[in-house]
Amino acid sequence: MKRYVLKAPLSAAPVASDFTTIDVPAPDCPEGGLLVRTVYLSLDPYIGSRLRGRHMGDVPPRPMQDAIPGAIVGQVIASRAAGVAEGDYVHAMEGGWQEVCALGPGSFRKLDPAAAPLRAHIGVLGMPGLTAWAGITRLAKVGAGDVVLIDAAAGAVGGTAGQIARLKGASKIVGIAGGSEKCRVVTDTYGFDACIDYKAEGWQARLKEVLPEGASVFFENVSAEMAMIALSVSKPYVRGVLCGLADAYQAATPQAHALNAGAIIGKRAQMLGLVVYDFYPDWDDYVAEASVWIREGRLAFAEDAATGLDAAPALMEKLMRGQNIGKPIITVSEERA
Amino acid sequence: MKRYVLKAPLSAAPVASDFTTIDVPAPDCPEGGLLVRTVYLSLDPYIGSRLRGRHMGDVPPRPMQDAIPGAIVGQVIASRAAGVAEGDYVHAMEGGWQEVCALGPGSFRKLDPAAAPLRAHIGVLGMPGLTAWAGITRLAKVGAGDVVLIDAAAGAVGGTAGQIARLKGASKIVGIAGGSEKCRVVTDTYGFDACIDYKAEGWQARLKEVLPEGASVFFENVSAEMAMIALSVSKPYVRGVLCGLADAYQAATPQAHALNAGAIIGKRAQMLGLVVYDFYPDWDDYVAEASVWIREGRLAFAEDAATGLDAAPALMEKLMRGQNIGKPIITVSEERA
Repeated sequence: MKRYVLKAPLSAAPVASDFTTIDVPAPDCPEGGLLVRTVYLSLDPYIGSRLRGRHMGDVPPRPMQDAIPGAIVGQVIASRAAGVAEGDYVHAMEGGWQEVCALGPGSFRKLDPAAAPLRAHIGVLGMPGLTAWAGITRLAKVGAGDVVLIDAAAGAVGGTAGQIARLKGASKIVGIAGGSEKCRVVTDTYGFDACIDYKAEGWQARLKEVLPEGASVFFENVSAEMAMIALSVSKPYVRGVLCGLADAYQAATPQAHALNAGAIIGKRAQMLGLVVYDFYPDWDDYVAEASVWIREGRLAFAEDAATGLDAAPALMEKLMRGQNIGKPIITVSEERA
Repeated sequence: MKRYVLKAPLSAAPVASDFTTIDVPAPDCPEGGLLVRTVYLSLDPYIGSRLRGRHMGDVPPRPMQDAIPGAIVGQVIASRAAGVAEGDYVHAMEGGWQEVCALGPGSFRKLDPAAAPLRAHIGVLGMPGLTAWAGITRLAKVGAGDVVLIDAAAGAVGGTAGQIARLKGASKIVGIAGGSEKCRVVTDTYGFDACIDYKAEGWQARLKEVLPEGASVFFENVSAEMAMIALSVSKPYVRGVLCGLADAYQAATPQAHALNAGAIIGKRAQMLGLVVYDFYPDWDDYVAEASVWIREGRLAFAEDAATGLDAAPALMEKLMRGQNIGKPIITVSEERA
């Protein structure tokens, strides 16, 4: 079977030519686990830093050996796990860029294909969606009347966060994204009230204009610098979710990520660090709640889709350059009944 | 009457020779307000920056003209305020370094001399105590089982914060202070479980040793750098109260106060900005609660006391140098029945 690997250790954000394939025998089904055929593969920003060993202490994959990590939706080929049968669909964080993967006990969640489209588990029902939900509902506790500011708003986390904030009663959702095309997705697909293009002249003044009342919540996906800009257009006691520092994932060297303590005190801000791993136990609850929203048409998701494992390297490079519109997803093989 | 003023605009932390006296006529009693004889005068770190116009936008006092600002406890000489009579005692934030002051409507709180010693309203029942109470009970919401780390722990804010944390059910209170004499006050007078002397070799290793379980709450009074040290010995989801940046009040130039967003996310920290002004409406409630603790001997306070307005310049310089042990308080005149 085909597996994508790194050619050599990485020292910068990955580009398409950093990846190559090896041919390996399909693994055995582990004790208590599953053998799974990859159907959908997720590409995510954090993988850019993880490949360089700069993500939460994870060890990077060994060149010419380990699969490039990535979450998947897959169909069970063989099962030694109670309650999971051949033909069932599962989600796994550690599927990777390969045609077949072995999943140990506790490393997968069984999916209900009738509840929501299977591909939705990459993105809106996947780790990005869970991240958005945890930040909006568990940390910021968004409720009626909140005014919510979200950057990287065209991304799977940001776009889902804004929609969940609305579903939880927020009165106004403002996004920040790069370029007019992304901003259109934010307002037209995700239904934000406004989206500011940070690549346009005078964008910070426009951000102030669309938030005369000040944000009561902001959701930070990009950088400490952007968090301080968000703070500057917030009202006192703003809850600021520190979710990710996507800019830094790609940076050549570790960064200071400096938040200004004086500005935080002056604004009486609550800065809330978010690590989605802590909310894995809540994943099924989130999926149950959000599947209803999807079926009712109240939770939209945009995809940057491609077909075939061989499309992954180029789509990963596009993601690293911030050129994707919507969640990058690879259809590796067909859904089958 | 005597009033202390600045000789000239300040560009650094004040020293005793920056102050001088002028003789001015006693003011009239304002419409709806009070004329008050100063009994106790509070000296506080934030005054160091306020004298230079570097505190929350406050205008610095004009040299050779305006009184040096300072909170006071005073006795009413004349009243045009409903519910306040000659001979009553009041607390006011804007009394200043002078023998008599005029207080406008809404700028004072009437005190009950039977509830607690009048001098306790400088310090433990004053703005430092209110700050401590707001941070511990309203922001960090300290409760049973919390492990609380507090720096500048020999100060009026830190020392009171630790005691209130204990009264609210915290299981362990650790302080940080400069020098063995201050550390003794923290453990012996304020009853902290341990106090680490940050001037001693290897203090950060010792701090780790006394907090093997990690702090669940920290209360930051000193600097962003110290907050990051506190974060490093905290457990996930620590609530970090950002109360003050005393180091910066004295710094020659404005500082970056850099908190590391990556470290905050990694620790899932909640950083909570505190401005005590917001809690002025709760002051009487706090005094009512804390007066009981004082009468029962459960809330101690250490003073660095001096007598006579002329003692203020030297005590202020001592405070700026961090050499005071306990709350600086000047007895300006006698309590009278």
